[in-house]
Amino acid sequence: MKQDLKQAVEFSHSILTEQLQAGANVIDATVGNGNDTEFLAELVGAEGQVWGFDIQSQAIETTKDKLAESELLERVTLIQVGHQKLGQYISAEIDGILFNLGYLPGADKEVTTTVETTLQAVKAGLERLVEGGVMVIVIYTGHQAGKEEAEALLEYAQGLNYKEYNVLHYHFINQASKPPEALVIKKRG
Amino acid sequence: MKQDLKQAVEFSHSILTEQLQAGANVIDATVGNGNDTEFLAELVGAEGQVWGFDIQSQAIETTKDKLAESELLERVTLIQVGHQKLGQYISAEIDGILFNLGYLPGADKEVTTTVETTLQAVKAGLERLVEGGVMVIVIYTGHQAGKEEAEALLEYAQGLNYKEYNVLHYHFINQASKPPEALVIKKRG
Repeated sequence: MKQDLKQAVEFSHSILTEQLQAGANVIDATVGNGNDTEFLAELVGAEGQVWGFDIQSQAIETTKDKLAESELLERVTLIQVGHQKLGQYISAEIDGILFNLGYLPGADKEVTTTVETTLQAVKAGLERLVEGGVMVIVIYTGHQAGKEEAEALLEYAQGLNYKEYNVLHYHFINQASKPPEALVIKKRG
Repeated sequence: MKQDLKQAVEFSHSILTEQLQAGANVIDATVGNGNDTEFLAELVGAEGQVWGFDIQSQAIETTKDKLAESELLERVTLIQVGHQKLGQYISAEIDGILFNLGYLPGADKEVTTTVETTLQAVKAGLERLVEGGVMVIVIYTGHQAGKEEAEALLEYAQGLNYKEYNVLHYHFINQASKPPEALVIKKRG
């Protein structure tokens, strides 16, 4: 009967649902298996637009099929390129950006996001973000690379000017299993 | 149009709204000006019960008037005693507990919660909490005593056995003004 507290992915979806309206322009910076892309495509509605980035062709293909099946492909542009280059592909003002970092389930575990490219992508994303827009980053600290990535992201986000951004950290602090964390960066409007 | 991210007090209310059902037994461990008490009384409905603790008579009187006005007094028991003693006054199983720490606006600033009594009250509250129940603590780190209280609470909560509790920390990490933080302790069901 009593539900669990929202895990980070669920929390990221609830923040985006609260913050975005139908017709929004959004970026899925980490397409992966396409679950988030599909969620975003539903959220923005027929008038909205989603750009999805992933460096792996497998991610792009799987997601294309998934979106075609749910008849959402029309509102999504999938781009097979590292998300650090998103600034080159998008000139529109963006209302929301989602990063869900870490491995693509079932794919090459060597192809994970790296600290450097993630930070580049976050910066490029913030530059595209409209005033009042929001970025949500789901971070995995269960493996060493993820832990370093989390530290770098938190340090970067903590240093963002409070007059321009409000940064929220949502994390479980007593779990042995290191559940994912969420970082929310809201651009002041 | 675009709304701000939820501040800690608002987040505490949304967690309790998600987690509690009509008919719940809840504790407001820090009655203060009665805003939270009123919120909780509405939330639990006519079949629910609220116990409110505050050491200051001013808080109890103000809240009594407020609840009488909104015709919610019948479902609330106000107890003028330090919340560290709540275990002596409550034997019922409790579904939710809210702490909103810090000063009572307009009252004697010397009468703030202290690290020791807060920790005692939190422990006493967790003992009364039903499986699946939830405690939410809103912490103020803007003054020195609050900062020490926050550190002690976080350290205590971080040490709670993950098999029995799930502990969530919700806080803004780049603000000069040190906005309040929320700590959520969910007892596994």
